[in-house]
Amino acid sequence: IPLSRTIRCTCIETSTQSVNPRFLKKLEIIPASQSCPRVEIIATMKKNREKRCLNPESKAIKNLLKAVRKERSKRS
Amino acid sequence: IPLSRTIRCTCIETSTQSVNPRFLKKLEIIPASQSCPRVEIIATMKKNREKRCLNPESKAIKNLLKAVRKERSKRS
Repeated sequence: IPLSRTIRCTCIETSTQSVNPRFLKKLEIIPASQSCPRVEIIATMKKNREKRCLNPESKAIKNLLKAVRKERSKRS
Repeated sequence: IPLSRTIRCTCIETSTQSVNPRFLKKLEIIPASQSCPRVEIIATMKKNREKRCLNPESKAIKNLLKAVRKERSKRS
């Protein structure tokens, strides 16, 4: 057991609100690690590159991941 | 129709090989856009921060996303 450990999570709170995949610039998924004990999902929006932390266990994330993966060359 | 358009995808080729979620530092999902007509999934590995492009349509990605999302405070 280490004497002390600095917890450095990126997200303070998460949103369970859904994100429109069309306005999404990037989605980052950071697995749990020694620096942060929970999975973090950070959505960067196109507008202002605003970042939003999403709840990994929400239904909205599941649907978003599905939508993004399926979106192929529609906008080419 | 624009006269010309510069395609700037991050990935040149993708791997369908599976990635062990334990060695994964970060997973980035970039939706299709005007600069790149396809979805890109970039895995950054813990070791050397090596980056790997993954095929969004592969079964391996589906399982990886599931594994990462489900991995909660196991390593805390």
